[in-house]
Amino acid sequence: MNKNSTNIMALAPKSSNKRDTVCIFGTGDFGRALGHKLIQSGYPVVFGSRSTQTSSLIPKGAEVMSHAEAAQKAAIIFIAIQRQHYNFLTSLAEILHGKVLVDISNNSKINEYPESNAEYLAQLVPGAKVVKAFNTVSAWALQSGTLDASRQVFVCGDDMAAKQLVMDIVRILGLTPLDQGSLLAAREIENYPLQLFPMWKFPILLSLGLTTFFFFYCLALDVIYPYVYQKKDFSFFIAITIPNKICPILALILLGLVYLPGVLAAIIQLYRGTKYRRFPDWLDKWMLCRKQLGLVALAFASVHVLYTLVIPIRSYVRWRTSDRIISQIQNNRTEPLNTTNAWLSDSYLALGILGFFLFVLLGITSLPSVSNNVNWREFRFVQSKLGYLTLILCTAHTLVYGGKWFLVPSSYKWYLPPVYMFSLIIPCSVLVVKFVLIFPCLDKPLTRIRQGWERNPQYSE
Amino acid sequence: MNKNSTNIMALAPKSSNKRDTVCIFGTGDFGRALGHKLIQSGYPVVFGSRSTQTSSLIPKGAEVMSHAEAAQKAAIIFIAIQRQHYNFLTSLAEILHGKVLVDISNNSKINEYPESNAEYLAQLVPGAKVVKAFNTVSAWALQSGTLDASRQVFVCGDDMAAKQLVMDIVRILGLTPLDQGSLLAAREIENYPLQLFPMWKFPILLSLGLTTFFFFYCLALDVIYPYVYQKKDFSFFIAITIPNKICPILALILLGLVYLPGVLAAIIQLYRGTKYRRFPDWLDKWMLCRKQLGLVALAFASVHVLYTLVIPIRSYVRWRTSDRIISQIQNNRTEPLNTTNAWLSDSYLALGILGFFLFVLLGITSLPSVSNNVNWREFRFVQSKLGYLTLILCTAHTLVYGGKWFLVPSSYKWYLPPVYMFSLIIPCSVLVVKFVLIFPCLDKPLTRIRQGWERNPQYSE
Amino acid sequence: MNKNSTNIMALAPKSSNKRDTVCIFGTGDFGRALGHKLIQSGYPVVFGSRSTQTSSLIPKGAEVMSHAEAAQKAAIIFIAIQRQHYNFLTSLAEILHGKVLVDISNNSKINEYPESNAEYLAQLVPGAKVVKAFNTVSAWALQSGTLDASRQVFVCGDDMAAKQLVMDIVRILGLTPLDQGSLLAAREIENYPLQLFPMWKFPILLSLGLTTFFFFYCLALDVIYPYVYQKKDFSFFIAITIPNKICPILALILLGLVYLPGVLAAIIQLYRGTKYRRFPDWLDKWMLCRKQLGLVALAFASVHVLYTLVIPIRSYVRWRTSDRIISQIQNNRTEPLNTTNAWLSDSYLALGILGFFLFVLLGITSLPSVSNNVNWREFRFVQSKLGYLTLILCTAHTLVYGGKWFLVPSSYKWYLPPVYMFSLIIPCSVLVVKFVLIFPCLDKPLTRIRQGWERNPQYSE
Repeated sequence: MNKNSTNIMALAPKSSNKRDTVCIFGTGDFGRALGHKLIQSGYPVVFGSRSTQTSSLIPKGAEVMSHAEAAQKAAIIFIAIQRQHYNFLTSLAEILHGKVLVDISNNSKINEYPESNAEYLAQLVPGAKVVKAFNTVSAWALQSGTLDASRQVFVCGDDMAAKQLVMDIVRILGLTPLDQGSLLAAREIENYPLQLFPMWKFPILLSLGLTTFFFFYCLALDVIYPYVYQKKDFSFFIAITIPNKICPILALILLGLVYLPGVLAAIIQLYRGTKYRRFPDWLDKWMLCRKQLGLVALAFASVHVLYTLVIPIRSYVRWRTSDRIISQIQNNRTEPLNTTNAWLSDSYLALGILGFFLFVLLGITSLPSVSNNVNWREFRFVQSKLGYLTLILCTAHTLVYGGKWFLVPSSYKWYLPPVYMFSLIIPCSVLVVKFVLIFPCLDKPLTRIRQGWERNPQYSE
Repeated sequence: MNKNSTNIMALAPKSSNKRDTVCIFGTGDFGRALGHKLIQSGYPVVFGSRSTQTSSLIPKGAEVMSHAEAAQKAAIIFIAIQRQHYNFLTSLAEILHGKVLVDISNNSKINEYPESNAEYLAQLVPGAKVVKAFNTVSAWALQSGTLDASRQVFVCGDDMAAKQLVMDIVRILGLTPLDQGSLLAAREIENYPLQLFPMWKFPILLSLGLTTFFFFYCLALDVIYPYVYQKKDFSFFIAITIPNKICPILALILLGLVYLPGVLAAIIQLYRGTKYRRFPDWLDKWMLCRKQLGLVALAFASVHVLYTLVIPIRSYVRWRTSDRIISQIQNNRTEPLNTTNAWLSDSYLALGILGFFLFVLLGITSLPSVSNNVNWREFRFVQSKLGYLTLILCTAHTLVYGGKWFLVPSSYKWYLPPVYMFSLIIPCSVLVVKFVLIFPCLDKPLTRIRQGWERNPQYSE
Repeated sequence: MNKNSTNIMALAPKSSNKRDTVCIFGTGDFGRALGHKLIQSGYPVVFGSRSTQTSSLIPKGAEVMSHAEAAQKAAIIFIAIQRQHYNFLTSLAEILHGKVLVDISNNSKINEYPESNAEYLAQLVPGAKVVKAFNTVSAWALQSGTLDASRQVFVCGDDMAAKQLVMDIVRILGLTPLDQGSLLAAREIENYPLQLFPMWKFPILLSLGLTTFFFFYCLALDVIYPYVYQKKDFSFFIAITIPNKICPILALILLGLVYLPGVLAAIIQLYRGTKYRRFPDWLDKWMLCRKQLGLVALAFASVHVLYTLVIPIRSYVRWRTSDRIISQIQNNRTEPLNTTNAWLSDSYLALGILGFFLFVLLGITSLPSVSNNVNWREFRFVQSKLGYLTLILCTAHTLVYGGKWFLVPSSYKWYLPPVYMFSLIIPCSVLVVKFVLIFPCLDKPLTRIRQGWERNPQYSE
């Protein structure tokens, strides 16, 4: 585009008013939507089709002609047909020689074919310059203009100039091209729109597993135990009481797991004395899904907050309150204010509130548009300093809440520890190791090891 | 820009250090702010003005001269004067011939003039290449650099090369140009900054109407009825009790309305047997404002949550609690724990919490920066699968909450049904129809109809 | 890039398949990460290094050679070495003549050296065209592709064509270049990644100061006073009761401070009769950090909401409730429902909820991705109309909450006013002045003064 307008302006000012004709093979949904959008942006559009009769669905201003005729009119041809029908293109090989072919196709399954559609196209028409693009954009979004989901268009191809041409068109259509390299990247690009939250898989599976475990643990101790020994029916604990134990436990464990890999990495680097050897694979993957782990933890924390705030409205709790008051009166026994209890209760609530507040703050700064607007120093400050503060507050919240039960034998029903104790293992370990790592004798060498990495020194030539 | 630097580099490396001079007609706020920004980006700037004396407001480095002189210095001229003063440009027609005129003007009312300002300018100076741009950017934002609101600059014009030139300048200034097509689009672009949430109009008016209706309905049943028959003054219900009935009702109705058009569309497609006929206009419009409907519903749900959580703090509720306990004691009657009640109360709270949590999740994924970072499959998964789950949970929440009152005659005051029953009609209908549509005998043909649309098959040539 | 592909395409179609070679001096972290990314985008990359043996860390496909050799291979050279080692470049001055040198370095302190690194580089190699860029991007983010933080790359330089070249590379790498002008801007660009929330400094320091003051004020009145005069230990008030007084006070004061500068500006403009004289510096700075002030206020308001909702769960509050009920019974005194109290309690809760809801709405619209999607009219509508409504609701919330205590002498312990009264001074003043400014006799001239500014009239030539 740039190129053309430049040349034209210099040589022939009269015709400067035109963009180059674009050809689209195929009059299906995507072909039509793309044609519509291209015409809107000032491109003359011709459709290549088997039947050349114009239907009412073809965008106004576009011409429909045979594939061969259409291909001759343009330097760039969008292949808006399905992979199964690509074969017929071999018969046009001569006409397509030197043209830019844009493969916009998608598959219905990940890795459906041995090679990507774009590479297959390049094999079929060896003389053409194949560029993969537009497959992540939906026809409906293109036509309606409501590009809610991704404005990013991944582009790849072996020919730089062809790729440039396509990227310019992408930009003119109001989308953002992202160069992904050579045509080898086409497979990944074709798999992209078929993915379903790949980074979230591990955190969600992990939390599902933990939820199941803790649910049955709580069920045993809170519902079955009192039923067996006291003949009391607390089955309704399944609705709120038990979830409100599971949620904070999972939130704390997952938050601990967000900071554990960082601590492990520090230990490995200290042990190795260098940062130039790769971490083991599992640690690499773990570090890449820390954000997702943290957000799942935040989800559990939020539900925990709601469950907790709803407590005084619960029918059971209201019954228990009046039952307690009535029994106090009937026994004619008034309790004075227990200041220790008041302190404990208020502290763990306050710690929880502050911890949750910082947690939400972390969540907000991980929104793409917010994190795009801070520099690295600010991002690290929030995610690391505030993150650790959150972990400390939440761990303290749990400790203060349940601390009194550690030494009470009656809380070890069936010789099992109260469930909330499990939640403390990981965060406490992380905090202890992190505390040790802060000591100068460990912090200094670690900082020196990392400086080679943080700034770009290690002028290792 | 591209063009020029290219040529210059090739021909005269010495002068490669210069961008082309830009001319601005008018030294008002926007003209000066633009000049300031252009100079900052390395453009030599000349101002065309009636009085050529430089004031202290003119940005440093800019020259002020007569319109004619200024126009001759540059190939591109920003017309930063009001439409009423455009006439004088006719006298400069000869000098302006072949120049790029950028119309940046706005009107004070939508469709104020028969033709857009840019088209009017093109009529006045037929020899010039008119481009519409920059009208959505505020002078203040341009100057202060705090471009909080839109960085997008809509550009349109009939001359491609001229448009390209302007789009390059937009990009250099750190803004994002969006090509809107030919100068015909100028009207829409000029109307854009005058719009006030056009997509939100229908959802907000609808919810205002429903709010009014339900308010008076509740007022009659909850305040006037007890006053008439029991001489009790419950007027303070207006502050919290009644709003806390209206909010959940509206949230549920609006959430139902988000999914109703999808169900209607499916029925229409099944009936027509094709997806290639347009939906009726009202359905199209309805589908386009689903996001807004959903967000208004979320707003009502959030307020409902706050109103509910605040219940135990209310003076009235605290009085009622102690009144109940005291009367229990005075009657020497202790109620045992009612497990059914505990179950019901805990379930509807738990359902509400989970429903609200998913609802908030839907809201977060509809944030532009989040939805930009998911692919279509993920977006549809969240908005459709999680959306229906939300609808199911919220409907169940309402059913469990009020189910016991369906068959109690005393809840039909003045023969009117309790207000919350109204909220169930739409969501229940949607869920029932959706459930029917899932049956293979309906789902299979529907999927086949839509596949022509989803992927781009229907190689209909 | 554009340029090259253009020329190449026109002249030598065979070689169109290549981008121009890029040279990187230095094989440190950033050099390698950049090389990796450039190779991925199709650039041939050569590294200039002291030792020319290829290590396993060098990205595949890149060549390592001596500085002089590497420099001769490319027109553009990234200087990925630290400022301290720049000196050796003087020996290469001849080879570097006419080349584009990209300075990507950062310092470890703000304003560490008298001149920016890029200007220092330009002095060392006067014949080269120095461009500052990429310093805000981290090596780790570049390599892993997880560009969570800023995708924006600030670019500055004195040579337009060189800058254009670099900006094209930035774009190809999937980042967004922002032209910051001449090399003079390098200092600011180098300081940018070292900044830590500069706009937040004032709001946070201010709120810290106010928090400290109010904490000791409350401590004196709520803990020390009852301890001295009534020998009661309310020290646990420090955890929740006192923070829950400080938070709403600070939220309201800071919210008032968001709207105060606007009111002051109006008064100054009315007094001066023009808007073309600059505001005093402190007012300018104040206006620029209004968004941050508002968000800090929102943070305090959110914490206040959590602290309030948690009230009924507090051990102390539950004790107080049962204590009150028991004493009622023991005194055999049943209180009837106090409708006035019910009204007051419900109103201030309802006002608070609505105020907080609007406040959160304001917060959401200030998210970058949301504010990017609204036009200026909508942005102003939300931030000004809804903002004032929020201020009114929150002020009314406070007034209704504490109104009854104004005239009760016992609330003036130690002759000091109850702490919440402090919070009313600023918001009430703002609202009163704003109300006065709405009167036509003041509003009309003010609008006229501002219109010169709002639209771009004042055709002052």
